[in-house]
Amino acid sequence: MDVNKEINWITEAIESYAETSIRRGEYWRAPYTPEDKAAAELLQKWMEERGMTTYFDSVGNLFGRIEGKEPGVIMTGSHRDTVRHGGKYSGALGMLCSIEAVGALYEELGQPQKTVEVVATVEEEGFRFFSSFIGSRAIIGKLTEDDLKETDDNGMTLEEAITEAGYYHGELPKARTDIEHFLELDTEQGAIMERSGKNVGLVQSIVGLKIGKITIRGERGHAGTYPMSMRADAVPLAAKVIVDLTRWARNRNDRVACTFGNVEVSPGKTNIIADEVVITFDIRSTNESLINEAESMLKEFQRGLGRGLSLEYEVAAYDKPADMDMDGVFAMRDIAAEEGMKYMRINSGAAHDSQIIAQIAPSNMIFVPSHDGIALTPMEYTSPESTVEGYTLLKKYLQKLAW
Amino acid sequence: MDVNKEINWITEAIESYAETSIRRGEYWRAPYTPEDKAAAELLQKWMEERGMTTYFDSVGNLFGRIEGKEPGVIMTGSHRDTVRHGGKYSGALGMLCSIEAVGALYEELGQPQKTVEVVATVEEEGFRFFSSFIGSRAIIGKLTEDDLKETDDNGMTLEEAITEAGYYHGELPKARTDIEHFLELDTEQGAIMERSGKNVGLVQSIVGLKIGKITIRGERGHAGTYPMSMRADAVPLAAKVIVDLTRWARNRNDRVACTFGNVEVSPGKTNIIADEVVITFDIRSTNESLINEAESMLKEFQRGLGRGLSLEYEVAAYDKPADMDMDGVFAMRDIAAEEGMKYMRINSGAAHDSQIIAQIAPSNMIFVPSHDGIALTPMEYTSPESTVEGYTLLKKYLQKLAW
Repeated sequence: MDVNKEINWITEAIESYAETSIRRGEYWRAPYTPEDKAAAELLQKWMEERGMTTYFDSVGNLFGRIEGKEPGVIMTGSHRDTVRHGGKYSGALGMLCSIEAVGALYEELGQPQKTVEVVATVEEEGFRFFSSFIGSRAIIGKLTEDDLKETDDNGMTLEEAITEAGYYHGELPKARTDIEHFLELDTEQGAIMERSGKNVGLVQSIVGLKIGKITIRGERGHAGTYPMSMRADAVPLAAKVIVDLTRWARNRNDRVACTFGNVEVSPGKTNIIADEVVITFDIRSTNESLINEAESMLKEFQRGLGRGLSLEYEVAAYDKPADMDMDGVFAMRDIAAEEGMKYMRINSGAAHDSQIIAQIAPSNMIFVPSHDGIALTPMEYTSPESTVEGYTLLKKYLQKLAW
Repeated sequence: MDVNKEINWITEAIESYAETSIRRGEYWRAPYTPEDKAAAELLQKWMEERGMTTYFDSVGNLFGRIEGKEPGVIMTGSHRDTVRHGGKYSGALGMLCSIEAVGALYEELGQPQKTVEVVATVEEEGFRFFSSFIGSRAIIGKLTEDDLKETDDNGMTLEEAITEAGYYHGELPKARTDIEHFLELDTEQGAIMERSGKNVGLVQSIVGLKIGKITIRGERGHAGTYPMSMRADAVPLAAKVIVDLTRWARNRNDRVACTFGNVEVSPGKTNIIADEVVITFDIRSTNESLINEAESMLKEFQRGLGRGLSLEYEVAAYDKPADMDMDGVFAMRDIAAEEGMKYMRINSGAAHDSQIIAQIAPSNMIFVPSHDGIALTPMEYTSPESTVEGYTLLKKYLQKLAW
C-alpha cells in the first residue's frame, strides 16, 4: 500500500472529474444534464478499471460492485451533483476516495467477504428540483410518484428528466434490503475542524433541519399620511419575529441555529407601508425538541397579533436529526487513535445522503477539513495533505467492514 | 356665480385630462413624455379660453397669467405629473380647481388688483428622476446644474429630457421674486378628514421628511455549518434596527412616523447567512428635532456593533418641515366658518410643492378628502360633493388675495 500514490490519483481525478462539468464558465453539475452524463461515464470507467461491475438504477444512481463471499452489502460513496456556482470538492472528493479505497483494497486483498458497492448518487443538493436527496431516497424506497411531478425552473418534471436521461422506464427503485452498512466521506463545509487543528471528523449526528417560509400580512398605506397609531405595518412584525427567534437561539449554546436568509417586502417602496413580508427560515439542531420549540414560538406569535396583522408559516421540508452508528464511531475512533491521527467528534450542520440511508442501515460519515470553512462555491478547497488521514480511515474501516 | 356649473366643469375636466395620459393601460404622466406634452397642451387651451396669457419656463412649468393693476403675483396651482400606476386626482384636481376659480373670478370681477398666475408644475412626485420637486425648485431658483445630471431608469439625464422636450436652451430659471402668496388645493391622501367627517382641511404644517438607506454588512456563511456563536449575521441586526426605531416612534404619540418600506437581503438564500441587508428608511415629523433624534439612534447603533458587523446609512433626501402661512390659515378659517363649511386644521404627511415655495413666499394649502384614504393609485377618488367646499374656499381666498 502506497497511500501517496492513491492520494495523487484522487488529486488528479478531482480535476478531470470537475472538467466534465463546466457550464457557462462555472462548475455546475445538475442531475440529468449532459454535464452529469459525462461525469457518470467517467466514474463508470474508473470503477470498471478497478474491477467493479457497474450499473445504474432507474433514477440514475451509479453503482460499482465487487461480489463478496457472503450475503450483505457494504456501501460507500457520495453524491455526484453540485449546486450552481459550485466547487470541485463537495460530493466529488468522497466519491473518488471511495472508488480509490475499494479499488486499492480489492487489488491488495482480493475478493471481499461482503459485497462492496461504491455509489455515486445522482442528486443530493436540491438545486434543480426543490426536494433534495433524489438519489438516496430512491435507494431507501422513499422516492414516490408524487416526487416525479416536481418541476424544475423550466417546467420540466422530474419524470420527464429521468426518462429523457434514459434511466427511467416506468418503475421507481424499491427499497434496498441488502445494505449492512453505509460509509460516506465528505468535506466539513465549515471551519470547526480547521480552527481546531484536526484532520479527521467522526460524525456523531447530522442535524435535523426544518425550512420554510413565514408570511406576514398587514395593511398597505402611504408613509406620510398614516400615523403610527393607524398602521398595520408588516415590516416591524417581521423584524420582531427575527429578533426574538435569533435571541432564543443565541441563548442555547450552539445547540440550535436559526437563519433567516431572505426577506422579501411587498410592495417594497420607500414611502409605502408594506402589506406583505415573506421571510425564509432555516432551523437546525441535533435535538428534535429544540426544532419543535422554535416552531412553537412562531405559533405563539400568531396569538398576540395587533389589528390588521396576520402571520402564517409553511414548512417546506423537515429532515429529522439523524444519529450516525455509534459502534461505527467507536470503531473509527480506535483506528484513528491507533494511527495517530488528529481526529475529533463532530456534528454535521449540513445535510448528507448518510442521514437518509441511516433510515435503513447503520451509517457513518468521515469529515475532512474544508479550507477557511468555504463550501459550495468555486473557492472550496481541501488539500491532499488534509485528505490523507480521512482517506486512510475510510479505507481501513471499509477493510474492517467488508474484508 | 353658479358653483355647481364650476364643479361640473372640474368633474368633466378631470376625466378628459386623465385621458391624455394613459400609458400601457394605466394613468402615468411622467415629466417630459408625450403624455405630459398632451396634458400641458390641454391645460394651456383651458387657460387661454379663460383669458389667461400662457407661457412655459425653461424646465417646463406652465403658467397662465392675468395681469393685475399693481405689482406682485398671487400664484395658485399644483403639479401635473403622476406616479406610475397613478390616479386621476392627486395634483390634477387642485390644478383644475385653480384654473376654474381664477377663470370664474376674472369673468365675474374683471381685472384683478394683483397679477394672478395659475401654475401647473412639471414634476413633483420624484418618480422618473430620484429628486422630486423639479418644478417648484425651479420656481424658487434652487434647481442646479448638478440636478441636471440626474438620470432616469433608461440613463437619460434631466438635461437631455428637458432639452428634448423643447423647454431648455441652456439656462435654468432664476428665483421668482414677485410671488406674494402661493395657494394650492390637493387631496388629503389619507383618511383623517373622511373619518372626522370634514370636507375642508386647513393645512398648518407639511411634515419634514428624511429618506435614505441603511446598509448592514456581516459575514456570509452556510446556515448549517456556522454555529450561532461564530456568526456575524446581517439579518438580525437589521431586524433590531427596525424593531427599536419603530418602538421609539410608536411611543411618540403620532408626532413622528418611521417607515421601513423595503428590505433587501444578499445573497438572499434560505440556507446562507446573509452578509448584506439594505433597508430603506422614511422618517417624517413636523418637528425637526424628532427627525434628528431618529438619526441619532442610527448613530448609536454604530457604536455597539458585534464582531464582523457594520452599519452605514445614507440620507438621500431631507426636506425640512414647512409651516404654512398662519395669517392665511386664520383668513381661510374665517371664510370657512362664515360659509358654514365642515373644516378642520390638519398637518400634511405627504410632500407638496407648497413646502418648497414656502421658502420664498407665504404659502397655504387646502385639503379635500380622499375616499378611504386611498392615494396615488388608480382607485383614488374625491367626489364632486367632497370638492365643492374646498373649491369655494380656494376661490374666495383667491378673491381676497388678488381682487
